[in-house]
Amino acid sequence: MALAGSPRAKKGILERLDSGEIVVGDGSFLFTLEKRGFVKAGLWTPEAVVEHPSAVRQLHTEFLRAGADVLQTFTFSATEDNMDSKWEAVNAAACDLAQEVAGGGDALVAGGICQTSLYKYHKDETRIKNIFRLQLEVFARKNVDFLIAEYFEHVEEAVWAVEVLREVGAPVAVTMCIGPEGDMHDVTPGECAVKLARAGADIIGVNCRFGPWTSLQTMKLMKEGLRDASLQAHLMVQCLGFHTPDYGKGGFVDLPEYPFGLEPRVATRWDIQKYAREAYNLGVRYIGGCCGFEPYHIRAIAEELAPERGFLPPASEKHGSWGSGLDMHTKPWIRARARREYWENLLPASGRPFCPSLSKPDA
Amino acid sequence: MALAGSPRAKKGILERLDSGEIVVGDGSFLFTLEKRGFVKAGLWTPEAVVEHPSAVRQLHTEFLRAGADVLQTFTFSATEDNMDSKWEAVNAAACDLAQEVAGGGDALVAGGICQTSLYKYHKDETRIKNIFRLQLEVFARKNVDFLIAEYFEHVEEAVWAVEVLREVGAPVAVTMCIGPEGDMHDVTPGECAVKLARAGADIIGVNCRFGPWTSLQTMKLMKEGLRDASLQAHLMVQCLGFHTPDYGKGGFVDLPEYPFGLEPRVATRWDIQKYAREAYNLGVRYIGGCCGFEPYHIRAIAEELAPERGFLPPASEKHGSWGSGLDMHTKPWIRARARREYWENLLPASGRPFCPSLSKPDA
Amino acid sequence: MALAGSPRAKKGILERLDSGEIVVGDGSFLFTLEKRGFVKAGLWTPEAVVEHPSAVRQLHTEFLRAGADVLQTFTFSATEDNMDSKWEAVNAAACDLAQEVAGGGDALVAGGICQTSLYKYHKDETRIKNIFRLQLEVFARKNVDFLIAEYFEHVEEAVWAVEVLREVGAPVAVTMCIGPEGDMHDVTPGECAVKLARAGADIIGVNCRFGPWTSLQTMKLMKEGLRDASLQAHLMVQCLGFHTPDYGKGGFVDLPEYPFGLEPRVATRWDIQKYAREAYNLGVRYIGGCCGFEPYHIRAIAEELAPERGFLPPASEKHGSWGSGLDMHTKPWIRARARREYWENLLPASGRPFCPSLSKPDA
Amino acid sequence: MALAGSPRAKKGILERLDSGEIVVGDGSFLFTLEKRGFVKAGLWTPEAVVEHPSAVRQLHTEFLRAGADVLQTFTFSATEDNMDSKWEAVNAAACDLAQEVAGGGDALVAGGICQTSLYKYHKDETRIKNIFRLQLEVFARKNVDFLIAEYFEHVEEAVWAVEVLREVGAPVAVTMCIGPEGDMHDVTPGECAVKLARAGADIIGVNCRFGPWTSLQTMKLMKEGLRDASLQAHLMVQCLGFHTPDYGKGGFVDLPEYPFGLEPRVATRWDIQKYAREAYNLGVRYIGGCCGFEPYHIRAIAEELAPERGFLPPASEKHGSWGSGLDMHTKPWIRARARREYWENLLPASGRPFCPSLSKPDA
Repeated sequence: MALAGSPRAKKGILERLDSGEIVVGDGSFLFTLEKRGFVKAGLWTPEAVVEHPSAVRQLHTEFLRAGADVLQTFTFSATEDNMDSKWEAVNAAACDLAQEVAGGGDALVAGGICQTSLYKYHKDETRIKNIFRLQLEVFARKNVDFLIAEYFEHVEEAVWAVEVLREVGAPVAVTMCIGPEGDMHDVTPGECAVKLARAGADIIGVNCRFGPWTSLQTMKLMKEGLRDASLQAHLMVQCLGFHTPDYGKGGFVDLPEYPFGLEPRVATRWDIQKYAREAYNLGVRYIGGCCGFEPYHIRAIAEELAPERGFLPPASEKHGSWGSGLDMHTKPWIRARARREYWENLLPASGRPFCPSLSKPDA
Repeated sequence: MALAGSPRAKKGILERLDSGEIVVGDGSFLFTLEKRGFVKAGLWTPEAVVEHPSAVRQLHTEFLRAGADVLQTFTFSATEDNMDSKWEAVNAAACDLAQEVAGGGDALVAGGICQTSLYKYHKDETRIKNIFRLQLEVFARKNVDFLIAEYFEHVEEAVWAVEVLREVGAPVAVTMCIGPEGDMHDVTPGECAVKLARAGADIIGVNCRFGPWTSLQTMKLMKEGLRDASLQAHLMVQCLGFHTPDYGKGGFVDLPEYPFGLEPRVATRWDIQKYAREAYNLGVRYIGGCCGFEPYHIRAIAEELAPERGFLPPASEKHGSWGSGLDMHTKPWIRARARREYWENLLPASGRPFCPSLSKPDA
Repeated sequence: MALAGSPRAKKGILERLDSGEIVVGDGSFLFTLEKRGFVKAGLWTPEAVVEHPSAVRQLHTEFLRAGADVLQTFTFSATEDNMDSKWEAVNAAACDLAQEVAGGGDALVAGGICQTSLYKYHKDETRIKNIFRLQLEVFARKNVDFLIAEYFEHVEEAVWAVEVLREVGAPVAVTMCIGPEGDMHDVTPGECAVKLARAGADIIGVNCRFGPWTSLQTMKLMKEGLRDASLQAHLMVQCLGFHTPDYGKGGFVDLPEYPFGLEPRVATRWDIQKYAREAYNLGVRYIGGCCGFEPYHIRAIAEELAPERGFLPPASEKHGSWGSGLDMHTKPWIRARARREYWENLLPASGRPFCPSLSKPDA
Repeated sequence: MALAGSPRAKKGILERLDSGEIVVGDGSFLFTLEKRGFVKAGLWTPEAVVEHPSAVRQLHTEFLRAGADVLQTFTFSATEDNMDSKWEAVNAAACDLAQEVAGGGDALVAGGICQTSLYKYHKDETRIKNIFRLQLEVFARKNVDFLIAEYFEHVEEAVWAVEVLREVGAPVAVTMCIGPEGDMHDVTPGECAVKLARAGADIIGVNCRFGPWTSLQTMKLMKEGLRDASLQAHLMVQCLGFHTPDYGKGGFVDLPEYPFGLEPRVATRWDIQKYAREAYNLGVRYIGGCCGFEPYHIRAIAEELAPERGFLPPASEKHGSWGSGLDMHTKPWIRARARREYWENLLPASGRPFCPSLSKPDA
């Protein structure tokens, strides 16, 4: 599939990573489109691709403009068990939308699958692999550029996903939604990474469930696990755009604020610049976001790493770096905010004096 | 202009308000489109209507779908002094976009103007009125349904705006960006309301600069001022979607977090439901939002007042009231969040233990 | 009584204040001795003067050493209705203890009375004045230096107290436990001050119930009331040693933390230095503390005003000003704290990330 | 020494612990007397025993009355290197004061030593042991009941202390001022405990530097270390009375609030009841406090463990359990606080909305 015999000049995901390039991922579809009115919280299914394609197209456009090198098909949990017969049309439409926006440009389109709702009840490898395979067939038919298996809380199921995705020969990325404590069976991040690498994943990491600093901790453990096992894989992180220092093992879903009271936890663009820098310093080269990542957060990654990448994203035409857009303000104390030190050191207040700073997870 | 001889059946803004209907306003264009990559913070001008019309169209669509009865033209500070010769094309395109989205439906299109950058240097009534008149000519030509003069910090300039807007005979709404302390010359909210009513405004209120609770306090003072002067006017509020209990006279622009560190202050949907209810109880019937109001915040207004209005907005198809969309979750502690008491009483944590809850304004 | 024909050379309270001297008050007996194990919270009665005289003597000694110019008899609510027949022995012992510690020094002993538990049920002037008169007889017999009527929430009862205390000819100070909203019948602080001055009080102010900044606001209103009525009186403040920005009309007793969870609200010595300076700048010359004021808080008043007073208190031998005692620490980052700027600007963390910064009062 | 041939009937520390009794320690002398005006912060030396013996006597009395079974001599850092020739008089006077207060009662007097200021510069075993031995000679001469070596950050020095203290045959307790990360040479708490047990300590644990929850974590590690090495020792904890979830390796001294801005971190009595219960559940039987522990904190330990001990301390005559002293208050919402659930669940506000909840340690 992808790229084989393609007339397009664009470099594949592995060519990019192998040559040391930074790959900027995209951000949140479910949470962003929930706030825009096209996704239902609780269900978290992507029927918007057929019901409101312009809303999805617009969001792809925004992430692309913000600097994303990858447009991920909006196919999260778009499987038969979650969506009945609609699933196939949804997967096909999602591919079309991402490819339409990618157009003739350099951005890659990645077909995305995630953990099934079955695994926790029946560890039925055949049936689960079949679910993955059905989505994969659409991706193969649509000729996406590479594949992402994401949001796995059990490494065994993630391994099955990798095994299936490898069947068509395209590059395979896999990310688990785990924190430093490891997967739901207490397999450590290091061991998870090793199992995924051995299963043949080209790119390994984490996504969702945990905020920036926690996810980078997990990445560090994955990296060490691979190193100790003398295995090679590219590293990838797509964390939450929410701060979760008070996470429990299940991450943000177990926090009392999930999913309708997370606003005070939303990361600033400056938090995300710091995250991008630290991810880079850790050796991660595929850096994006998950729930809570709006287009300006993706732009923050691209801006932070612009010196390394050599260019700014299109959306930076509407953004002065480090607040420089404020330097003409009529109020001198606002002009004084037009500098890096100001925003790097700001500890933003919540405006919520009756609220605590941390919560106890429900589980 | 608007409605005169119109073949359209839709009721005008005053017909609606006079008959006791609730009018739901729309939300933030500048801040929302800044996060999406189409507006530059610091400049805060609406060139996106010509540069990226699909982004503006999409946002209008989202607010409409969220329940807005009014689509405001994205013409904030689209004047010659701010935008050079582009200003006319921008105003025209903004009208076209709003009217295209309103289509044959019931939503009204309001042409919007705001305070000039001149007033604070030269209180030149002729020149300032001329600036207003130029925008008005476009609105009249485009036949918008009514007019809004908003974001005035000096009541004198707001009065001038009302005087100009009245020239074409369409209904005129006016909102000031003031808090309970009044305008920049210490004219109290009550006095401001009286002056604006005497100038002929049909709808009077506040927008921007202050959060929900503060803006409602200001509205209470305006209402009392009108009552004490035995004047009638419809009341309107379009507050910030940010909490600002720690405001100084200038409101959120003077808070250290403005404009790039406001995330922890973003209101939840439940905060906005409470705001909508309190605004209603105060007698305000035109209820919308300003900076920080995303489509889901507008939906929250429409949902809270659905019993009074008799219908839910289209976007509620993707929203279970009071978290009911969580009632099928596999984790029982998340299912337990599918109820009103839970979200009404939640005090959401910021996830930012090194940050304070309040800031001292810079001025 | 006091000072008339006294062989002692010490200047009376009015001589001091009339000549422009600063008078440093003492601090909290009830709360401090509750923490030391000698007072029962809820009862808040001073039987410790007979049961554990050494504990009371020690606390007087500490306040004297910290710089207090006045030792107040520990006779708060030591009336027949609160203490049965013990009341007389308690008042007598309290006078003896304060006078013993004052010894031949310059400190003045003030006999203290407070509001009755009767007033809110029966506004029986004769009976209430009689209660005051009984305590006064003990103070007169013991020849205290002056009298303080404190902790009144109704100005009418405070006036009665002043009227009684004036009967023996000693100087009379009176403080109400009110905030900026005024007394329990909505008499403003300004009006309260006027009524108390007209009743013959020499020194007027507030004590207890509200933290430093709130109490100074109330003092400002009292001062303005006296000025507007062209009345003269010395000003006195003895606020809480707790921060209460979230007070309701009843002050700290209505906060959910009262009385056993107030720890996070305790003022630092630096807060109190600031309070002393602001009180002084406002023209208040009798500056002390109430509940929550430990000896080191009184020392902070005396140290802050040492330049004006010309001397440091004895306890300063054990205190380097502005943290200078840290300048020999082996860790350089702790040595770096040995300076005024450090402590003046420190925003101390609570170490309680699950707690809010403000509470809603229960009433 | 202690107890050998003593006419007193009181049981020794080991008899008590061996028979399963709970031993309640005492609280903070340095911090408490600093606030009372008798100790200088920065120096932290106990010259008050000779300069202000009544202040020290009073504090011993308060701790005894609060339920302490042990009165520790106030001899912290009373060594020649810190106090010149005064050291001997100070140690002798400290013993006299503690023994005078213990009187004919059941409380034990413990002679206390702590780490030297030399160790970190010269690990000179002979010289350091000699310093310890000089204090020990005073304790032996005064016939104290047992010995405590406390506040050691290097296990090697603690071992030397134990070796010296064992020379006179009295029971020896030893506590290190370390957290879960272990000593300053990264010896883990488990290893530290093992070394101290092998050196002959009868009672092992931690004191100071870290708050309740952190200290209990360290104790858990010590307990596991001893168990894994099949060693027996009694466990002892005397934590800070300050919350320090944001500790670095050096504990509270490295927090920016140390030592003059710690007020918001002071534990409530309810925090300490919880600590006492958790310490007990962990198997710790010697439970006291260090810096920040006021008499009412010690009373909270004694009250929490009263069911196990069979009696309340004398100071409980002035304390209604779980706020019951409020049950007669005239305000119903304050009466409603007279119950355990209220205080157990209270999350006390700081009244400091401009302050964070956590700090970053300076090192």
